[in-house]
Amino acid sequence: GYGRTGVIYYENDTNENESQIVSRLRMNLDASTSTDQGVEFGGRFRLQWDQGSNTRGDRASTNAGKLYVTSNGLTVEVGNVDTAFDSNGLLYATELGAFDRSVGFSDRTGSFFSYKSDAYADVDRVGVRVLYEIDNLTVQGSYVDPDQSGLNEVAFGTKEEYGLSVDYTWNDRLELSAAYVTDGAGIEDNDVFFVGARYAVMDNARIGLNYVDASNDSAADDGNTIALYGDYALADGLTQIEAYIANNDADWNETDNAFGVGVNYDLGGARLGASLQRDYNENVTADMGVRFDF
Amino acid sequence: GYGRTGVIYYENDTNENESQIVSRLRMNLDASTSTDQGVEFGGRFRLQWDQGSNTRGDRASTNAGKLYVTSNGLTVEVGNVDTAFDSNGLLYATELGAFDRSVGFSDRTGSFFSYKSDAYADVDRVGVRVLYEIDNLTVQGSYVDPDQSGLNEVAFGTKEEYGLSVDYTWNDRLELSAAYVTDGAGIEDNDVFFVGARYAVMDNARIGLNYVDASNDSAADDGNTIALYGDYALADGLTQIEAYIANNDADWNETDNAFGVGVNYDLGGARLGASLQRDYNENVTADMGVRFDF
Amino acid sequence: GYGRTGVIYYENDTNENESQIVSRLRMNLDASTSTDQGVEFGGRFRLQWDQGSNTRGDRASTNAGKLYVTSNGLTVEVGNVDTAFDSNGLLYATELGAFDRSVGFSDRTGSFFSYKSDAYADVDRVGVRVLYEIDNLTVQGSYVDPDQSGLNEVAFGTKEEYGLSVDYTWNDRLELSAAYVTDGAGIEDNDVFFVGARYAVMDNARIGLNYVDASNDSAADDGNTIALYGDYALADGLTQIEAYIANNDADWNETDNAFGVGVNYDLGGARLGASLQRDYNENVTADMGVRFDF
Repeated sequence: GYGRTGVIYYENDTNENESQIVSRLRMNLDASTSTDQGVEFGGRFRLQWDQGSNTRGDRASTNAGKLYVTSNGLTVEVGNVDTAFDSNGLLYATELGAFDRSVGFSDRTGSFFSYKSDAYADVDRVGVRVLYEIDNLTVQGSYVDPDQSGLNEVAFGTKEEYGLSVDYTWNDRLELSAAYVTDGAGIEDNDVFFVGARYAVMDNARIGLNYVDASNDSAADDGNTIALYGDYALADGLTQIEAYIANNDADWNETDNAFGVGVNYDLGGARLGASLQRDYNENVTADMGVRFDF
Repeated sequence: GYGRTGVIYYENDTNENESQIVSRLRMNLDASTSTDQGVEFGGRFRLQWDQGSNTRGDRASTNAGKLYVTSNGLTVEVGNVDTAFDSNGLLYATELGAFDRSVGFSDRTGSFFSYKSDAYADVDRVGVRVLYEIDNLTVQGSYVDPDQSGLNEVAFGTKEEYGLSVDYTWNDRLELSAAYVTDGAGIEDNDVFFVGARYAVMDNARIGLNYVDASNDSAADDGNTIALYGDYALADGLTQIEAYIANNDADWNETDNAFGVGVNYDLGGARLGASLQRDYNENVTADMGVRFDF
Repeated sequence: GYGRTGVIYYENDTNENESQIVSRLRMNLDASTSTDQGVEFGGRFRLQWDQGSNTRGDRASTNAGKLYVTSNGLTVEVGNVDTAFDSNGLLYATELGAFDRSVGFSDRTGSFFSYKSDAYADVDRVGVRVLYEIDNLTVQGSYVDPDQSGLNEVAFGTKEEYGLSVDYTWNDRLELSAAYVTDGAGIEDNDVFFVGARYAVMDNARIGLNYVDASNDSAADDGNTIALYGDYALADGLTQIEAYIANNDADWNETDNAFGVGVNYDLGGARLGASLQRDYNENVTADMGVRFDF
């Protein structure tokens, strides 16, 4: 798990304070066993607290369990699974700073299921994920049924979600990723398509291009978004500069362009980070904080 | 703790899907310390998630704590204790497959308190258990007061439950067990009596006979049940065949006979299992899955 | 964490049973990492169950997370912090027995925030604590904002609490402590001041004097309290006798004097303890139990 804390500023017109201390503490509880043939079986719970969250702000939430079996690069998960779309290698590559935020891209990737850190909305939700990793290739597919009992099929958000994701690295320099999800988050016709590429132009500099089509005329329509992004490591080997510029075509935008710059400084076990971004409502947001993994 | 997952089929006349993926993830959180004299003090919490459960299906439940002290074979537990009746050595011996299910016997053993994996119904519930183990003999007694405050004594299910259990193994081949509980689950006049025996007729085959009298004219009357059961290990030493046939005399039964066959295959650290059973409503149920302990 | 269990008797005029089994099980879940420069970052969650508690009696509660960074004696905490006032070295020095109870002093120290073992009342509560330890001196300050969002400022208990605490030990024999909190527990004008001293008159005997001024005409007025207390270790080196006598000037007292005697016996890893006390309502309370730390 990890912990992070710091201050986030978010320009807004309400009475809410624009600058707030925001912290997260996440602990993964893992247990596993191996058979004589080298097949590994295991399970995971998570305890997570997020400052200000309605569902995990007053205390650490517990969540539904994930069970998995893995052998020779093939992993099958059942329960509260990491979904294929959410696990894509480049989907979150535009994120900046210690809080890993990207208001220009991550906030417009549409709706889809992911590993849930707090309680399910429905005790009958079930998921399955198959993941295959070989050399430089990762292929995965996932399935989430929001209610396998069959008793709630008429309600909103109860379609079965199917997702697929492929990641490939060529020659250690070029990363190529694509992902697709149908009826994302159980919402009918909410199909989202993502494709991305990132290239290491120098040993200490990478540049990437991401595209996501979440313009599906469903209740979760987020428009089409394209982002150009990159990062550059300074000569000290500890400081990394990051930036992105993104364009989204949704009708309700104040502006179709968003951008951000960020920096991370490696403390060797923890990192300090900051970012400055502007979103599609033309609101400015900034953050500064520290993150440590354990 | 352990994890298990697989598919359970249960014949039914409702709109509910008859085949569902059913998983459980259980993690016990144990902590203990020993005094200079070798007395061990400890405590346990449990995190458990059960697919589809109303109380622990949407997330891992936490539960009330158990505290214990143990020395020289004598153990005293306080709090959310393992009760004597529920801890009997043969009470669950008819169970089959990876899910350890027995619709013909375990479902008709009446109501009684047990170690609770999720929240108490009453914050004033308290339990005490005394367990003594010596050589081939295990004797235990337990007491559960559903509300020690004395403020809710008029409500349903607030009698104090007393339980007793004895297990004895003779010559490593014959197991004898008996257990008794009065006012089980705090329900007045809900007295349940169990007796069972199992004999190893060969090194790789055992046969047993269980009898439980839960016909107590209380709100938890389950009738009398007798079950003949056995298991047989194949020559590979990994595959175990199990079966039972049971008779229950409750008035509301569609049939008075239930039966089941099961198989478990040892993966060395995990086990694959399946069972096929018919219950007293003449409904067929089947399951197939995997269980791993850690 | 630790576990403790035993029986507490509390004289009362209601229908509630005067003698009850009272247990607690507390497990701290800690995780940390160190940077190359020796700075330690970490976080803590707690699981706690308290017999009979309304908020953590039916199951183990989870709580909001605490994050900290520590280096060279300086510690900064963010989130669900240990507050300065609550962490004072002598504030709880009058407590007796295995349950560490002091109805004459600890119950009249006013209201203030502390590390919360169960859920926050408000997801927007945030705390910060700075702690500095050097040689025999401990200085700490803390700040708790019950609602940093700024949206609930008009409600009761939403002032920002500031606390300060100093502990100093002179020549290994004399302990001096003082603490101050303003708007304690977010309640306006609820300022509490504490000062205490304890002196080791012999190697095996200590005597102390505590004073707390919680007479602040706020909703949390607890009057002024002074307590004289001491402890004495018997020649066996395992048995410790403790006692206090206290005076409180609140108008609603039945009597202005309270007192108690207690004993603890060290089992080497666990301790047996008992106490007998009389509170300001002239009610007698007694307890006997065992506590073990792990």
